[in-house]
Amino acid sequence: MTTTLKQFMETNISKIDHEIYEIVENVQAPEQLKEAMHYSLKAGGKRIRPLFVLAVSALFNNIKKESYTVGAVIEMIHTYSLIHDDLPSMDDDDLRRGKPTNHVVFGEALATLAGDALNTLSFGVLARMDDVTPAVKVELINLLSVAAGAEGMVGGQVLDIDGEARQLNLEELEKVHENKTGALLRFSIESGAVLANATEEERKILVEFAHHIGLAFQIQDDILDIEGTSEQLGKTAGKDIASQKSTYPALLTLEGAKRKLREHYEIAIASLEKLNGDITLLKELAQYIVLRNK
Amino acid sequence: MTTTLKQFMETNISKIDHEIYEIVENVQAPEQLKEAMHYSLKAGGKRIRPLFVLAVSALFNNIKKESYTVGAVIEMIHTYSLIHDDLPSMDDDDLRRGKPTNHVVFGEALATLAGDALNTLSFGVLARMDDVTPAVKVELINLLSVAAGAEGMVGGQVLDIDGEARQLNLEELEKVHENKTGALLRFSIESGAVLANATEEERKILVEFAHHIGLAFQIQDDILDIEGTSEQLGKTAGKDIASQKSTYPALLTLEGAKRKLREHYEIAIASLEKLNGDITLLKELAQYIVLRNK
Repeated sequence: MTTTLKQFMETNISKIDHEIYEIVENVQAPEQLKEAMHYSLKAGGKRIRPLFVLAVSALFNNIKKESYTVGAVIEMIHTYSLIHDDLPSMDDDDLRRGKPTNHVVFGEALATLAGDALNTLSFGVLARMDDVTPAVKVELINLLSVAAGAEGMVGGQVLDIDGEARQLNLEELEKVHENKTGALLRFSIESGAVLANATEEERKILVEFAHHIGLAFQIQDDILDIEGTSEQLGKTAGKDIASQKSTYPALLTLEGAKRKLREHYEIAIASLEKLNGDITLLKELAQYIVLRNK
Repeated sequence: MTTTLKQFMETNISKIDHEIYEIVENVQAPEQLKEAMHYSLKAGGKRIRPLFVLAVSALFNNIKKESYTVGAVIEMIHTYSLIHDDLPSMDDDDLRRGKPTNHVVFGEALATLAGDALNTLSFGVLARMDDVTPAVKVELINLLSVAAGAEGMVGGQVLDIDGEARQLNLEELEKVHENKTGALLRFSIESGAVLANATEEERKILVEFAHHIGLAFQIQDDILDIEGTSEQLGKTAGKDIASQKSTYPALLTLEGAKRKLREHYEIAIASLEKLNGDITLLKELAQYIVLRNK
């Protein structure tokens, strides 16, 4: 990791975390609910999505309080989806980021409700931002609703469950990932552009970047499930093979998956090169997530 | 029921239903997910909350397409909360409105995701309304997020689960209901006022009305659980007594609960009388929900 990226991550992850905790702390709600919400938010994710909001904001010289707020909101949506995905009726995972999952600690009912609360809270937080016009808030809320809902993340999760029963082909697998994880990553990148009043052309380029880096990110996830250890990943490794899940390595072989990752990564970077402005941070962040080992 | 109210309900319930189905139909999502969303939305609720949006809109001569959209959104939030509440890890109900509950038909995973999708979709639908300014949309989204989330409905559900373990006192019981069911009913009434650009004073009066009619509504629910039959209610009657749940009749006796209901009803109506404009519909709707037998 370069010094620039390291410094950028160190400074901003603590600011993002602060913003997240402050948002939940200010909610007037039963203590056990707040505790359950905090628990999974604190569980130490990589904060990749908020970092993309900030890297895009940096590109447009537009890092401000609201960049952190939007980043925090994305992390809240991401966290709610993990809480619900881990439930016994879904993926039935006991371990997440090296810690017991939400329902293991708080019970299924409270875990379900903590997820629901984070989902609902996210939209309110966007609506209450200070230095953003109502029109921009409405645009962000609309984009987030599409990215996180039936047309995006939730729809992708349905396709994913559906795909467990049979072997998907490459096109179907891409569709799962574009929705399940790609849509929210795309929102992270696009929201930074919306906050900065970027041009249509700039947004189009960034969305193209988001598409390819999102797929690269997911392929790396699949590769890590094979090459990583449970300790490294903070979750059970080798689960995909054990469950005969449709993955890139399963469809393309491990080498083929690595080639595919490289392809998407290179198209993503080529998209960025079309932009004016300093793309160093975005490039380094993209490189970081495809080279990561956890 | 008066002819005015009957006509109002007949005309508007079908329009609300149409709006709801159109919203879900237009979502680009996996078919099984849409089917699960439709199933519970179609299950024939009383559409009380959307009717309040319309009755308040009528008071301000402001019934328009967007009144139905906001009503549909409230029904979507209400329905998602019922789907999640019915889950085995929550209330574990097999029957709702006389039909098998969502997870009985579609399985727990899809039921959880259908609820999540309805929750997320609601905010997007508000953001995409046509004839409403961005500032009004942002206000509605903020109010709905508070009403439906940790500070309202979801928080109330947590308090309710918490209360199952012990006998609540009257103050605690009111707090459960103010959050669990009152907050969304209040939003139904307040959103009609926001859509009509009502004055602060008018909103204050309507919120007072909403508070009392919400509690009256809940007390009637508790009474019906004792006096109604499962067939009438479309859900298991007598469940509260069987589970020793904290209810108004349990705390105040059945007669005491009926007196309390009358009190709240009368304060609610007295609030309405302070408004200018034709309050006939609102009064009749209020009467309808406290005299209902299902």
